[in-house]
Order: sequence, then structure tokens, then C-alpha cells
Amino acid sequence: MTHFTLGWILIGALIVGSSANAAGPGGDYPVQPVPFTRVSVQDDFWRPRLETNRTVTIPYDFRQCEATGRIDNFAKAGGLMEGKFQGIRFDDSDVFKIIEGAAYSLALHPDPWLDSYLDRLIAKIAAAQEDDGYLYTARTIDPQNPASGAGPTRWSNLKDSHELYNVGHLYEAAVAHYQATGKRSLLDVALKNAGLICEVFGPGKLCEVPGHQEIEIGLVKLYRITGDPKYLRQAKFFLDMRGRSGLRTIWGEYCQDHKPVVEQSEATGHAVRAVYMYSGMADVAALTQDPSYIEAIQRIWEDVVYAKMYLTGGIGSRSGGEAFGADYELPNKTAYNETCAAIANLLWNHRLFLLTGDSQYIDVFERTLYNGFLSGVSLTGDLFFYPNPLESDGSYKRSPWFDCSCCPSNVARFIPSIPGYVYARKDDSIYVNLFLQGEASIPLAGQAIRLRQATRYPWDGRVRITVHTAAPVEFTLRVRVPGWARNRPVPGDLYTYVDEPAGPVLLSVNRTSMVPPLEQGYFLLRRVWADGDTVELDLPMPVRRVQCHAKVAENRGKVALERGPVVYCAEWVDNNPGLDRVTIPGNMTFETVFRKYMLGGVVVIRGSVARDEPSRAREDVIIPDITLIPYFAWAHRGEGAMKVWLPVSLSPSPIWLEEIVLPKKTG
Amino acid sequence: MTHFTLGWILIGALIVGSSANAAGPGGDYPVQPVPFTRVSVQDDFWRPRLETNRTVTIPYDFRQCEATGRIDNFAKAGGLMEGKFQGIRFDDSDVFKIIEGAAYSLALHPDPWLDSYLDRLIAKIAAAQEDDGYLYTARTIDPQNPASGAGPTRWSNLKDSHELYNVGHLYEAAVAHYQATGKRSLLDVALKNAGLICEVFGPGKLCEVPGHQEIEIGLVKLYRITGDPKYLRQAKFFLDMRGRSGLRTIWGEYCQDHKPVVEQSEATGHAVRAVYMYSGMADVAALTQDPSYIEAIQRIWEDVVYAKMYLTGGIGSRSGGEAFGADYELPNKTAYNETCAAIANLLWNHRLFLLTGDSQYIDVFERTLYNGFLSGVSLTGDLFFYPNPLESDGSYKRSPWFDCSCCPSNVARFIPSIPGYVYARKDDSIYVNLFLQGEASIPLAGQAIRLRQATRYPWDGRVRITVHTAAPVEFTLRVRVPGWARNRPVPGDLYTYVDEPAGPVLLSVNRTSMVPPLEQGYFLLRRVWADGDTVELDLPMPVRRVQCHAKVAENRGKVALERGPVVYCAEWVDNNPGLDRVTIPGNMTFETVFRKYMLGGVVVIRGSVARDEPSRAREDVIIPDITLIPYFAWAHRGEGAMKVWLPVSLSPSPIWLEEIVLPKKTG
Repeated sequence: MTHFTLGWILIGALIVGSSANAAGPGGDYPVQPVPFTRVSVQDDFWRPRLETNRTVTIPYDFRQCEATGRIDNFAKAGGLMEGKFQGIRFDDSDVFKIIEGAAYSLALHPDPWLDSYLDRLIAKIAAAQEDDGYLYTARTIDPQNPASGAGPTRWSNLKDSHELYNVGHLYEAAVAHYQATGKRSLLDVALKNAGLICEVFGPGKLCEVPGHQEIEIGLVKLYRITGDPKYLRQAKFFLDMRGRSGLRTIWGEYCQDHKPVVEQSEATGHAVRAVYMYSGMADVAALTQDPSYIEAIQRIWEDVVYAKMYLTGGIGSRSGGEAFGADYELPNKTAYNETCAAIANLLWNHRLFLLTGDSQYIDVFERTLYNGFLSGVSLTGDLFFYPNPLESDGSYKRSPWFDCSCCPSNVARFIPSIPGYVYARKDDSIYVNLFLQGEASIPLAGQAIRLRQATRYPWDGRVRITVHTAAPVEFTLRVRVPGWARNRPVPGDLYTYVDEPAGPVLLSVNRTSMVPPLEQGYFLLRRVWADGDTVELDLPMPVRRVQCHAKVAENRGKVALERGPVVYCAEWVDNNPGLDRVTIPGNMTFETVFRKYMLGGVVVIRGSVARDEPSRAREDVIIPDITLIPYFAWAHRGEGAMKVWLPVSLSPSPIWLEEIVLPKKTG
Repeated sequence: MTHFTLGWILIGALIVGSSANAAGPGGDYPVQPVPFTRVSVQDDFWRPRLETNRTVTIPYDFRQCEATGRIDNFAKAGGLMEGKFQGIRFDDSDVFKIIEGAAYSLALHPDPWLDSYLDRLIAKIAAAQEDDGYLYTARTIDPQNPASGAGPTRWSNLKDSHELYNVGHLYEAAVAHYQATGKRSLLDVALKNAGLICEVFGPGKLCEVPGHQEIEIGLVKLYRITGDPKYLRQAKFFLDMRGRSGLRTIWGEYCQDHKPVVEQSEATGHAVRAVYMYSGMADVAALTQDPSYIEAIQRIWEDVVYAKMYLTGGIGSRSGGEAFGADYELPNKTAYNETCAAIANLLWNHRLFLLTGDSQYIDVFERTLYNGFLSGVSLTGDLFFYPNPLESDGSYKRSPWFDCSCCPSNVARFIPSIPGYVYARKDDSIYVNLFLQGEASIPLAGQAIRLRQATRYPWDGRVRITVHTAAPVEFTLRVRVPGWARNRPVPGDLYTYVDEPAGPVLLSVNRTSMVPPLEQGYFLLRRVWADGDTVELDLPMPVRRVQCHAKVAENRGKVALERGPVVYCAEWVDNNPGLDRVTIPGNMTFETVFRKYMLGGVVVIRGSVARDEPSRAREDVIIPDITLIPYFAWAHRGEGAMKVWLPVSLSPSPIWLEEIVLPKKTG
């Protein structure tokens, strides 16, 4: 089980994707991400969040796992302590996900205490593993009477047991821990378990699939780090068997098991299961160059983005089944939008970008990142949202934990990975996807190109990129021009801007203005770059009203406000005497102000209407008619109402009040 | 009414106290504060709070006043709009208090918008003033049917009407606005009203007193700014008439009207009324040099500090009547501790310091400032506590506003005044009372001495003070050595440290260690100071357990934790699986860690107990046995339990479990 050659293993922590020298027989993503370990963040927006995750969320999440028995379950399964299984059968996965986050933290911040804590925690996990590699405390603690939903015997209830889901997260954690520390302790556990999975499941063996996808992603990571193709084959097996397994008629759309994956064209069922699956399909497609996979997930992507995604990038509108709804079924108050589904959307869109080099996927990624994902964790790092609705009557609030706490542990592992999504590379092109002050070191043409970004993004659209290189080198810098700056909030017509753009996107190189060619949403800057060369990008950031496709009944006669990548909302606390009375008249004008000490530092939008007749009762209102804050920052100031979509009022009758019926775009 | 000479008026904004050239016939405070306009704050603790108050709390409070009709009431009384009085009869005072805070803000930060807003708001207030100077919208809007509690006619229900209370705040706001802007608009309104009060109340005229004290402080401020002794006489009249007015038997202890003020020796009744009165008495005592006043408030101060004050500096333990309880009546869960009472305690203790030069009052001031006061406003500046209990079962949370919103408006005016409490001056002595990074310019011996403090207080006890002076000058620098650093958490024996001090307080001048004489709690450093001379103070800041006098039944067998001036608490969110199981064993050791991104940046205390037998189930808990956060920062992370006083556990039986019965100290 352990005689593979670790000499294959990558140097450096690659969190998503791989570099060319680790590619399997079928190649890999044509675009390769620049890993987070090569990107330092030095801004006032993400750096505090990364630090909060490191110093608050990760230890806090571990504490919650201690307090709720999640960690004792491993000790119990390993015979280190007495007691019954506590919690829910998939609780093991939370511990794995936090270990993954802690490993990312360790990769950048040496911390002997955390390192040693992980060692001792991993020793418990190893103890909990059965001799043949099986790892699932919900059964091991009491095989005769396993935890509810685990099924009477191994693999007997794969739809609900999460036996394969849990270990998918184990694999991801193990790879991260190995890459951060060089220690094989958790990797050995993972490989032993994966060996068992490969022996049990496969053609001519058990032909079943996980009810909750995730193991596919984990297996691909094991393949990349070991180079052993059996893990990749196993991932592809689990995908290819969907819609073909014996239980297909029972599992159905909820588990994306209603038809073979390459025949699917709509997002259905449980959103996290679905989008983890699409992400796994992207990985396998990249590594096997299977065009039918790529076509399927691009079809499904259009289905999601054109008709099933919230303005915030949130997906999965139904709480029943935590599922995708029908086309245009996008209710605001009851929007489910699980934080984990937002993370899945991030993982998936990044992979589609790596497959295609197309910035439309980064547009969706960025929208999800700054809005539907970021809302899921409080500024303090220890309160969380599970659903992320777009409207609240005031009865909804952030929670310190959940019985099913997939979201807090997913936040812990996703946040430290964010710097890994900023840059990418393909041949002699460097992609600049996200704007974030800091520095990156990117290997290219035998040297390390240093790129330095100076920007106040997302509060200001000006970005200065300085190139540092030991010797002049020719390459193409691909600078993303966000869809929101090109009059396209999202691909498709689900959301469109009411207002005209404020002005053109400006770009200069070494202070000389230019209009470079635009390809796949990127400005192409090809030249021999010398040390100190500077690119300045200026993305105008007016406040813009967005309208929604008329088929979304609930949003008719309403607009939302955006500025740059940030979606705004009106919260009770800024808008007395009540959100019910807040409207956006057609002649409302907006101003913005940066409030350094409000909600961690945010740009606030204030809207007001000039009045022709001087009204003594109104003219001296110090505050404008409405005040909006970034959606991600809501629910930090007590409980109260919130709305993203606000009714339009007054004539002249705005175009967005008319019913616009356009055919739904299809791929 | 307006023919006094404004040439008397001070140059510079003096918020509390006065300078010698404005003193009346009887002198003034022997110690004079250095006003906030001469002190710049450049630290990471107070500067964000000052900025949050300026950019969030003040506009937010005004918005709340707009939304709740408080400002419309002035427009209605002035005939500028139609409608009934809305709210409670003392709501006018909130508007005055926020104006006071806004004026302090304007004094340091020019803001044409706010300036113009105040102009228009003041125009409304002026319109609401009746021709003879009367200002009380609760009656003026509908004299035939005044608001509930206002009484059928002017002055007919002084116990409850707050007619005199409201205008006390008007006077304070008017002086602040004049000092900040040079505009007389609000001052004219105030003086016209005060003229009416002086005509109506007095010997041989209406011999009544306000039910809720405050006007005394306001009148003294009018006296200081105009030099007209009638305002001082009027303040003294209102004080001297207490316990002598016709309604005395009705008003009683609740309004401190049970006996003449100079005969009082215990704090009784409504805490804010009481302590505003003691503050007014201090002002009048300073200006008239009446020893009977001084003796009375010192007696009462000892009564409060020795037996009626919470560890947090909170006062007024009873919710019934918002009142002082009996000696040692200090329940934790039901502690009322109104935020306004904490502010009153700050005002009073500062005045006692100005009278005496004794740092024991600053000890109480500092304790209240960092704990019982600061807890009253959220980190975001827009959520407030009215009561500040020392324990919660989780059902209590911060509120955005209250029907009676005295606390939010009091916060708005107190926070910007904080820099005015850092330094003081007497003859050729400069007092350094609070430690806070920044710079001050202090007039002394014909030049401006610049003092620069560099410190991370309250998180670190090291303070470096650098003297900047154009020419060498001899003076005494009085550097406060806090009671907590001299083994005395508070004057008296209500609270005592369990642990020995960690080490001596160290001091050096120009890097030469010395042990200067200690007088009234100050290190006396007399020398000819030259430019660049440096004083370094090192206050050891161990975590220390505090025990409470055994007469406080509820705290027997419990300790609280302090570090420097900060009182700590255990909150649910850091202490799973529940606060009920949190104890402080006698052999617990504590470590501290600064969490920059937690709760705005706080030092957290972690306590753990070394275990003799290795316990597999416990040894790998990443988090210690307990975690405590500063009390002021509680209730920011969702609703849950909180405790300041925590039960002791395990042998050896600690001394604080024995009943200590000591006679209550008396003056």
C-alpha cells in the first residue's frame, strides 16, 4: 500500500490543479494556478480575513469539534477512550476539513503548537482506522449498532452514509498536511484508506457510487501527489457509474444519479453534491482530456448561470433537499444558498477557467467570492451562516455552530486558499484574475517573475501592477477586465445593468495609455518586460442598478445595487423607519463613502433624491434617503430586516418595469 | 438677556473645568484639565473608537432621532410642521447630547456638512423656544394637552417632567457648539432659557428643584463661558434647596431630596440623578470653595467605592428605580449598571481628582472607562447596552436604540471628550493620568510643553513619555502609578488581589533607573526638563485573580480575572461545553495572547492546569481549559452566557473561600 515513489511528489504546495511535471498520461489543466504559497497578501481587505481565519476560526472550529465529541469519536473508535459515537455520521469530515485549513495555515506560518496538535490529532485518526484501511467512526465505534444513517454494514447505505464523502475530505487534508509539513502521518492513513476503496469499488467489484460526491476531488489529489493512476481511474469510475448504478432509480436527481454524467445538462438536486461532482468532472476531464465531460459541465454551467444563480453567486435556492430549484426559481427570503454551495461554486468555476482560460468563469468566481461566500462568515471569524438569503424579516442571525457544521469547517479551509486564485499561468502567459494588494513570485522562462499589485480593490478600481524580473523577458500578461466593468454583471441575461457604464476601462503601460486587444475577457499585454515596468488599470466603479430577468417574478419592479464586484443591501439599522418604506426612485442619485471603522472598513452607498420644492421637514436630514452596505457584511449589528432587491418607485416608468421576455440562452 | 461680555469667553474648548482666567470670585478647581483639543490620540485602542464615534455613532444617533420623531418635535413646537408630540417628554435631551458630541467632533474635524446640519437643526430648536425662553417640546406642541408626565402646566411636575434636566443638556451642548464653531446660535437659545430659569426659580421665587439633576452642571458651564455669576448662584440654589423643598417628603431618596446635600453621606436612589448631582456639587465646591460640599461628596464617594461599586466601575445595582442598592448589594446577573451611570461616575471622579489631585479618583475613573463604560457601546458604534450586567444567561443582547435612549446619546458625547482626561496641570506640575499613545501640547511657564506618549496600553504596561520643549524648563511631572500596579484594585477593601504583585513598578529617566517619591499615587519627577528627555514607566501586567469582600454573598468562593486596567470575563463562545462547568482551580496558570483580528484587537487570557497523570483524553486539547476576553468586548458574537465572577475549585483551600469580615471603612 505504501510502496509508491514519493519522489514524484511536487515541491511546493499545490492546492488546486498541478504543475506540468506531475501530469498523468492525459495531461492536465492547460492553465495552471499559481499556488497560494507563492502569493503574499498585503491589503486591508483580505489580510485581516486570512489572519482572522488563522487565529480565530481554525482554533475555534477545533474547539467546537472537541466540545461536540467530533474528536472524541476518533479516540473512541481507536480504543483510546470509552463511549458511544456522538453526533452525526458525517462529523468526521469536519475534522478533516479543519485539518486541511490548519495545514494551509502552517504552510505560511510556522506554529509548533498547532503542528504538534495536528500530530496528536492525526495519531487519534490513525488509531481510528481499521486494519484494512476502513475509516468511519460512526461504524467502527459500535459495528453492531452503528450511528443513525450509517447503514447496518459497510457500504450498505451509500446514499446517506457519507462513508465515501468523509474520506474524500480525508484525502484533501492529507495532501495539504503532507505538503505543508513534509510529514506522511495523515497521508499514510489516506493512502491506506484509498487502497481499500480501490479494492472494493470498481468494474467487476462493487459498482456503486457515493451518495454525496467529494471523494472524486480527493482521489485526484492523491493521484497528483503520488502519480499513481489508480486513484484517477477510481475517481473516473465513481463519476462514470452515476446514473448507471443499481440504485439509480432510488437516488435520482437528488444525488445527480438520474442519468450518466455526460448526458446531464441541467443542475439538479442537492447543490453541494452536484457542484462537487462537476468539480471532480473538471479535474478528470483535464487529466483525461475527455471532451464529453467538458461539454457536460459547460452545458450545466450555462444552466446554472443563466437561470439558477443568485446575484450574489449563491446557488441552490431550495431548502427542501438543499437543492437547485427550477429555472428562475430564485426566491429572496427563502433563498437557501448554503455557504458550502458557494464554496463548491468557487471550486467549480476556477476549474472551468483552468480548462478554458476564459474569464467568464472568474467573473462568476469573483461575484461568489465577494458576496455569496463571504457573507457566510462573520467579521469576527466565529459566527457563520448556513443559508445565505437575499432578504430577511429580521428573524435570521449568524450562528456559532450547527449540528451539521459543514459550513464553518469549509470556511476554515477555503479562506487560506484564496491567494491561490489570484494568478495563473499558461505557457508564456501570466493571468491576473483577482485584484488584491500584494506580491507574487511566478516561475516563467527559467526565472521567477515577481508581480506586485497595489490597489484598494474592491473599494477602488485602480490597480497598479509592477513587474520585477532579473532580466528582461518576453511574455504575455493577461489582465482580466471584469464582466462588471464591461457592462455584463454575469454571463447570460439573468442580470443586466440598468445604467450605462460610467466610462471606459483605461489601461496604461509605463504611463502610456493604450487599448490592448481583449481576448476571453483579458487585456493581452505582450512585450519584453523589464524590471520595474508598470501596468495601470483603471476600472470605473460607479454605483449601478441591476435588474433581474422578468421571469424571476419576485424581482419584478425591483433593482439591486452593485459597485465593482460588491453587491449591496439595505439593512434595517441604517434605514429607519423601516425597510418596507425603502424604494429606489428613478431619479435617485448615489454617493459613496468609505467608512474605515464601520463593519471592518466598507464603502457605504447613500442614495438621495433632489427635491424641487424646499421641504423643511426633509432638507435637514443628515442622512440620505437610503443607506446600503455590502451584502457580505450584513447581520453584524443585531437582528433586523435586510433586502438586496428593492422596489423601484416614481415615474418615469423605468424599462425594468416592463416585462422582458427573452429566450433562455443555451449552450 | 444678551448684554454680557463675550470677551470673557475662553479661547479653546474647555470641556470640563476651566482655566484660571475664567474663574469666578471663588476660584476654581486647583487642578486644571488639559482640554481634548490639545491632545491627539494616535493609538490602536482609542483612535478607532473615536473615529467610529465620529463616523458611525454620531450620524447614526441623529438618524435615530430623525426616525423616532425627536427632531420633528422641535419642528412641531416651532410651527414648522404639523403633528403631535412623539416619544417621551425627555427626548429633547438626546438631541442636545448628540449635538454636544457633534460639536466636539467638529472641533477637531472640520466637516461643512455636519456644520450645516447643526445650523439647520439649531434653527429648529430656536423655533421651538417660546418667546420668554421656555424650551420643552413636550408642552409647547400642545400646551393644553402636554405629553405624558410633563405635568398640566410649567414646572408643575418637576420630579418627573425633566423640564430642567433637558435644558441642562442644552446648556452643555450650546457651550460645546460655541467653543467648536464660534457660532452663538445655540448659545443664545441656552442663555435665553437660563435667563428664564433664573427669573423663575430662586429665593423668594419658586423654591423647587429638578427631579433629575443635570442643570447644575450646565449652569456652571454657562457661568464659566460668560463669567456671569448668576448662573453659578442658580446652580448652587438648586443644590442647596434639595432636602428643603416643599415636596421633599414626596421625592425622597429616589431624587436625593431626603435631606440637604451637605448632610448626605450615602449614595441613594436613582444613580444617574445622584452622580450628576455629586458632579454638580464638585463644580460648585470648586468655584465657591465650600468645604461642606467637598466633605459631603467625599463621604458619599467612599460609600460608593467601598461598598456599592462593581468591579467594572459600574454603579446602580438595582433595576427598580435604576438605583443604588444597599451596601454590598451587588448581584451579577441583575446588575443594572446603566451606561449613563458609568458616564456619571467618570464625570464625578474626574472632578474629585481636579479638587484634590489624588490619583485614587483616577483609579476609579480608569476602571470605569475600560470596563463598565466601554461595555456600553459595541465595537461597531451602533449597538448599545443600557444595563451592563456582570453575568448573563444568554438572553441579553446589545440594542440599536431604546425608547429611553439616554445611553446612546451619552456615549456620543462622552467618547470624543476622552482625550481631555489624559493630562492635567496644577501650577508647575503636569499630571499624566491615563496612558494612551499620542501627543499633547500643554501650556506651562509661558511656553507649550509637548508630551509624547508611546505605549500599547492597555495591552502592555510599558509607557515611554518624551518631553519636547523649546527651552529647558523646570516643572514636576506627576506620573500616575495605577492602583492596580500598587496592589490595590480599588480604594477600600471591596476588591482585593489574591495573587502577589508580579514585580515592582520600574521607572527611568533618560534610561537611568530611579525610584522617585510617590505622592497621592503619582511618581514625582521634578527637574529641569530639556527637549528630548525621556521617561520610561514599566507597569507589570500579570493576570491577577481578584476576590470580593465576603459580604457580597454572590461572589463568595469566586474570583474574577484582571490584567492591567482591564476586567475579563468568560463568554460561552470560547468556553465549550458551557460556562456552568468553568472553574478556576487554585493551581491554574495563565498565559496571554494578543489577538489582533479578534474583537477589534484584544489580549485574551487562557488558563490551563498542568496535569500530573497524562490523560489521553485531555492532553491534546488545542485550546486551554478556559479562555477569557475583556469584559468590555462581550456580546459581539451572538447571544450566549457570560460571567465575570467564576467559581474557584480544588484544594488547597484558597484564602478567598474563608469569610473575611472586616469593618466597612468610613471616611
